Amino acid sequence: MGQTLTEKILADHLVEGDLETGEEIGIEIDQVLAQDTTGTLVWLQFEALEMDEVQTELAAQYCDHQTYQFDFKNTDDHRFLRSAAGTYGAHFSRPGNGICHNVHKENFAAPGKTMLGSDSHTPTPGGLGELAIGSGGLDVAVAMGGGPYYIEMPEVVNVRLEGELPDWATAKDVILELLRRLSVKGGVGKVLEYTGPGVETLTVPERTTITNMGTELGATTSIFPTDEKTEDYLARQDRADEYVEIGPDEDADYDDEIVVDLSDLEPLIAQPSMPDNVVPVTEVEGTKVEQVMVGSCTNGAYADILPSAKMLEGREVAMHTEMIVAPGSKQASQLLAEDGYVAEMMAAGVNFSEATCGACIGIGHVPASDSVSLRTFNRNFEGRSGIEDDSVYLCSPEVATAAAIKGEIIDPRNLADELGDLEAPGLEMPDKYDASKTDLISPEEAIDDELIKGPNISEVPLKDDLGSDIEGEALLKMGDNITTDHITPANADALKFRSNIPEYAKFTLTRVDESFPERAEAADGGFLVAAENYGQGSSREHAALCPMYLGVEGVLAQSFARIHKANLFNFGLLPLTISDEDYQKIEQGDNIEIVDDVAEGVREGQEEFTVRVNDDWELTANLDASERERRIVADGGKLSHTKKQAEEGGAGATPADD
Amino acid sequence: MGQTLTEKILADHLVEGDLETGEEIGIEIDQVLAQDTTGTLVWLQFEALEMDEVQTELAAQYCDHQTYQFDFKNTDDHRFLRSAAGTYGAHFSRPGNGICHNVHKENFAAPGKTMLGSDSHTPTPGGLGELAIGSGGLDVAVAMGGGPYYIEMPEVVNVRLEGELPDWATAKDVILELLRRLSVKGGVGKVLEYTGPGVETLTVPERTTITNMGTELGATTSIFPTDEKTEDYLARQDRADEYVEIGPDEDADYDDEIVVDLSDLEPLIAQPSMPDNVVPVTEVEGTKVEQVMVGSCTNGAYADILPSAKMLEGREVAMHTEMIVAPGSKQASQLLAEDGYVAEMMAAGVNFSEATCGACIGIGHVPASDSVSLRTFNRNFEGRSGIEDDSVYLCSPEVATAAAIKGEIIDPRNLADELGDLEAPGLEMPDKYDASKTDLISPEEAIDDELIKGPNISEVPLKDDLGSDIEGEALLKMGDNITTDHITPANADALKFRSNIPEYAKFTLTRVDESFPERAEAADGGFLVAAENYGQGSSREHAALCPMYLGVEGVLAQSFARIHKANLFNFGLLPLTISDEDYQKIEQGDNIEIVDDVAEGVREGQEEFTVRVNDDWELTANLDASERERRIVADGGKLSHTKKQAEEGGAGATPADD
Repeated sequence: MGQTLTEKILADHLVEGDLETGEEIGIEIDQVLAQDTTGTLVWLQFEALEMDEVQTELAAQYCDHQTYQFDFKNTDDHRFLRSAAGTYGAHFSRPGNGICHNVHKENFAAPGKTMLGSDSHTPTPGGLGELAIGSGGLDVAVAMGGGPYYIEMPEVVNVRLEGELPDWATAKDVILELLRRLSVKGGVGKVLEYTGPGVETLTVPERTTITNMGTELGATTSIFPTDEKTEDYLARQDRADEYVEIGPDEDADYDDEIVVDLSDLEPLIAQPSMPDNVVPVTEVEGTKVEQVMVGSCTNGAYADILPSAKMLEGREVAMHTEMIVAPGSKQASQLLAEDGYVAEMMAAGVNFSEATCGACIGIGHVPASDSVSLRTFNRNFEGRSGIEDDSVYLCSPEVATAAAIKGEIIDPRNLADELGDLEAPGLEMPDKYDASKTDLISPEEAIDDELIKGPNISEVPLKDDLGSDIEGEALLKMGDNITTDHITPANADALKFRSNIPEYAKFTLTRVDESFPERAEAADGGFLVAAENYGQGSSREHAALCPMYLGVEGVLAQSFARIHKANLFNFGLLPLTISDEDYQKIEQGDNIEIVDDVAEGVREGQEEFTVRVNDDWELTANLDASERERRIVADGGKLSHTKKQAEEGGAGATPADD
Repeated sequence: MGQTLTEKILADHLVEGDLETGEEIGIEIDQVLAQDTTGTLVWLQFEALEMDEVQTELAAQYCDHQTYQFDFKNTDDHRFLRSAAGTYGAHFSRPGNGICHNVHKENFAAPGKTMLGSDSHTPTPGGLGELAIGSGGLDVAVAMGGGPYYIEMPEVVNVRLEGELPDWATAKDVILELLRRLSVKGGVGKVLEYTGPGVETLTVPERTTITNMGTELGATTSIFPTDEKTEDYLARQDRADEYVEIGPDEDADYDDEIVVDLSDLEPLIAQPSMPDNVVPVTEVEGTKVEQVMVGSCTNGAYADILPSAKMLEGREVAMHTEMIVAPGSKQASQLLAEDGYVAEMMAAGVNFSEATCGACIGIGHVPASDSVSLRTFNRNFEGRSGIEDDSVYLCSPEVATAAAIKGEIIDPRNLADELGDLEAPGLEMPDKYDASKTDLISPEEAIDDELIKGPNISEVPLKDDLGSDIEGEALLKMGDNITTDHITPANADALKFRSNIPEYAKFTLTRVDESFPERAEAADGGFLVAAENYGQGSSREHAALCPMYLGVEGVLAQSFARIHKANLFNFGLLPLTISDEDYQKIEQGDNIEIVDDVAEGVREGQEEFTVRVNDDWELTANLDASERERRIVADGGKLSHTKKQAEEGGAGATPADD
C-alpha cells in the first residue's frame, strides 16, 4: 500500500519510532511559532537552555492576543518578545501586524515542512501542505533547542471532497458541516487529510479556514495536498520558489474515510455555545443580532473580508447592530485599505479595528448582556466572549454580514431575494499580496542582542541532574484529588505572574496550606505527599514548574493524574507511588530518604525504591516510567535534558540521539 | 466700552444675574453633550426628571472612552445610551464613530451658541465661536431639563495673536507656549478669548486644538471669533448655513491681555508629568522613544493626522518604536482611508486603531515599564497612561512622527536636515468632509422608545421636598477630615457600580463603619454627624447622592468642604454647622429633631435652627446658604427643583423663573 501525505512528511522527519498508529514517534521540527500569551514562557525556557540561537530552520514570534495592551505587562511582554527574537534569531512580528496563523501563512508556511506552535490553531498552514501541530510552550522551547517532538502516531483520516461550493456556501460551511457530523471530539488522535476532486476547487485561503478550524474537531492537525492553487497563492505572496508538489500516493491506506459533497452545502451556523452545535442558517432566521464581528485566524484574510465589504457597498449596518471588523493581518488591512474597501466599510457603519485576536478570546468588544453576537471566529464556548451566559454564533463572513445588514440572522440567499440587487460576492484575491513587511523584523534586521525584561518577567529555573542520594522533609501531606488549581491557582491575582515564576511560585499550594511556599523554600529540598489522583485538572505546566522552583524533589502519592505525571517528569520531579498503608503512616514533617542510588536506579529501569522515614521505618515506592521519561527526569527535566543533548552535539542539525 | 465676544454670547443667553466678574450668573444652554463614562448617570438623572424629551435645542450622546468594550458593562452602557438618546431626543454617535469633541465639531458646533458637556474638554468648539463649558453630569441633566447653568462670571482675557506660524510650528505649540507661560493654573476662573491678526492665519482645526487644550490651563473656556476661515470650514462640512459672524467689539474691555507672536514659535514639547512642563524640542533631543501615539480630541482631526501620513510616506517607523494612530473621528478615518493615507501609514509600520479616546485615559496601549511615550494628547499626569512612573511627553503630530521615524526625540527641523528630503507637511483639509453619517443617529431616525438597561444600570433616586418636621437618628458620628473617598470609595470594586446607585450605595461610609449602609437603610431617615472639614477631596456627586439614596436627611458638622457642601444642596441634604461643644455632646444613636418648621425656614432665609437631641437637650445649628441653594435644597435637590420648575412651565423655552 502507498503512503498518505501525513505519513510521507512524518517519514521525512522521523528521528525515533515507527509510523504505527498509537506508537510514540519522535519527529524533527522545521518551524516553530509562538504568540504573545504563550511566548514569554517559551523564551524564558529557551533562555534556561543557555543556547546561543534557535536550532530550527525558522522560528517566528507574533504579538496578537494582547495587542490592545490593556496593561503595561502586555507592552512589556511585547518588548521582551522582540528582544528574545532578536537575541536568539527568530522573526518578530510587531503588535498590530496580525494574528500568528495569518502572518505565518502569508510569509513562512511551506509545503512538506513540519511546524510546532504554542497555540491551538497552529494547524492552519495545513492548507498549504505543511504539517503543523499545536503544543505546550515547553515542547516549543525544546524544539527550538533542536530536540525532537514526541507524539503518538495519529490515525490518518481521508476527508474526500467532491463537487464544488454553490453560491453563498463557503469554506466555513465545509468545516461547520464536519463539526456537525463528527462533533468536537470527532478528530481526537487523528490527522484529517483532505483529498478528492473538490480540493482543486478551493483556494488556499479557503483551505486554511478549514485546517484552522480542524482544531475544533480535536484533530492533531489537518492537511491538504499541494497543487496549482497552492503554487498560485505562493506566487501572489512572492514566494513561488517555496512551492513543492506533495500529496498522498494514489493507493494510500487511510484509517478512515469521510465524504463531503461540496455542492450539497448551504450556509451553516454554529449555535451557542459549542462549535459543533451546527444547523442551517434558515433554522435560526429572525434572531435579533446586536453585534457582528468579522475577522480572526479562521476568517481574517483579505479573501474573507472582501465579501463583507462587497456586501456592504452602498448599504448600512442596522442601527441596533454593532459591526466590528478586525482583520487577521495588517497585510489584509493594508491591501483592503489600498483598494478602497476599508473606507467603504467605515462608511457603511463598520468599526474597523487593528489586526488582533482580541475579541475571540474575550479581550475587547465583549457582547452586551442578554444579546446575540454573530462571529466568523472558531470558538463559542460559554463565557469565552468575556461575559457569562453569552449567545455567540459562528458563521461565514457572508452570513455575518447579512445579519449586520438585516439586524437579525438571515440566510444570505434570502437576503439577496429580499434586496434584489445583492450578488454572491464570491472569492477574490489580490494579484499580488504586495504589502509592506515593515512590521515583520527578520533575525538579520534585529536590533536587540539581549533580553529586555520588565519587572514582571523573571528567569525560569533549571534543575540539576538527579543526585544519587535524595533526602528531605515531607513538606505537605494532602488528601485525594488535589487539582492543578490547588497547586497553582489560576485566578486573576495569580495569573498575571505567568511569566514570573518566583512570584507565581508564592501561590503554590496556598489553597491547601498558606505557609507552604515559605516553608518549602526554607527547607531547600523535600517531598510532597498525597493520596489518590494527585494533579488532576488542567495540563498547566506551572503545576510542576512552581514546586520545582521551590525545591521539591518528588511527590509520594497513591496515584497520579496522567498529564500532571508527565509534567512532573518534564520538570525533573519524581512521581513515586506508595501504598495506602504507608500513606497513612507518613506524617507531615517526617524526614524522607531514598536509600537506593536514585540517579542510577532511575536511568537503569529500577521500579522499586526503598524509602527510609525518620531513620525509623521503611516503605517501598514505585516508579512507573518509560525509558524516555527516565532519561528526562534523570537529567533534571526536559529542558535540562535538551540542553545536555545539545552540549553533547546531539541536538540541532542531527537531532535526537536518544 | 464695548463688549468682549464672551460677554456678547453670555448676554444673549443670560437669564439671571449681571455680567460682573465674580458674580453668579445663570445662562440658557443651547446644546449639551455627554460621553459614555459620564453619560449613563446624566441620563439616569434625566430619567428621574420624568420629562418626555430633552429641552435644549440639541443634545448629543457619544461613545468614545470605552470603545474597546473590555467588559460587558461597557457594551451595556453603550446600548443604554443609544436607547436614552432615542427615547429622549438626542443624537447618538455609535462606538467607533469617534471622540465627542471631534464629532461634535464636525456636525453640531455653531457660532454664538452655548454648550454644556460632561467632559472637561467640552470647550473645543470655541474654535468655531461657540461658548462651551465642561461641567458635572447633574448640571448637564438639569440643562437638558431646561434649567439654566449657574456660574461665577469669569474674567475675560485677551490672548492677542500676532504674526504667522513658521514651518514645523503648529497650533499645538501655541497652546504649549501658553502652558509654559501661564502654568496649569493660569486660566482658572478665566475665559481666554483669542484676537489679533494671527487669528485669521489659523484654520478651524488649528483653533480647536488650542481651545481644546485650554482646559489644561484650567480655563473656564476658550473662544475664537468667527471669520472666513470659520465659514470655509463649515462649508466644507456642508453646514455653511450655520455660519454667523461674531466677534468682540473693537473697544472691548478685557480683564487682562497676553500677546503671542506666532512667528516666534518653534516645536515645543511638554515633559513628564504635567502639561505645563514645556521646553523646546531641541532641549530633549536624543531621548529614546518606545511608543508614539497620534490622535485624541486635541490632535485627532484629518488635518492633524495627514501631516503624520505625509512624513511617513516612503519611510518606516523605527524598529524599537511602536506607533499607534487613533483618529479622533471616523470621518477622519474614512477620508484618510479614501485618500490612501491609511494604507500608507500601515505600510510604514503604524498600528491603525479604531477612533477612540482609549489610550489618553489609560485604556489600551499602556506604555511599557521604564519607557518614553510621545503623544499628541492633552494630558500627561503621572500614571494617567495606565502605568505608574510613566514618562509621557505631549507634542504636535509633526514632533511625534519625527520621533517615530528617528526612534528618539528630535526637532523635526533637524530631522529634515538629516534626511534631506523631508518637507514641512503644512496643513491641508479635504475640499469636502464628505464622509458617511451612518454612525450618527438623529432623534428622528432613532429606533428606541424606551430605556434598555443591563443588569448594572439602575434608576437614580429623586428626593421629595423638604418636610416641615425632620427627625431621625444620628446614624454615624465621625471625626475631622472625612473625605469623599471615605464616603463613596473609588476603588475598582466600587467604581464599576457608578451607574448602579443601589449597589454603589452599599459602599457608603463603609470605610468608617461597615454596618452603616444597612443601618441607614433600615432607619428610614437620619443624620450624619462629623467634626471639621467634612467631605474634603474630589467633586464626586455620588458622595451626596449615595447618602441621599440611603435616607440621610442632613449632616451636622463643625465645618464642610466647599464643593461637597454644594453637592449636599444639589442632592437635597441639609448641611448644618454646629459648635465643637455640641459636636462633643452628641452621641451616635441619639435622636435628632429639628424643632423649627424646616421647609419654611429654609425657604425664607432662616439661618439658625433649633435642634432637640433625645428630647433632652437643645443645640443651635446654622444653615449658611444662598437663596438659590435654599430653593434647591427645599425642593429636594437640583433634580427635583428642575422637575418642579418644568412642571410649573418655568423651564425650557422660557427658562428659569427663579
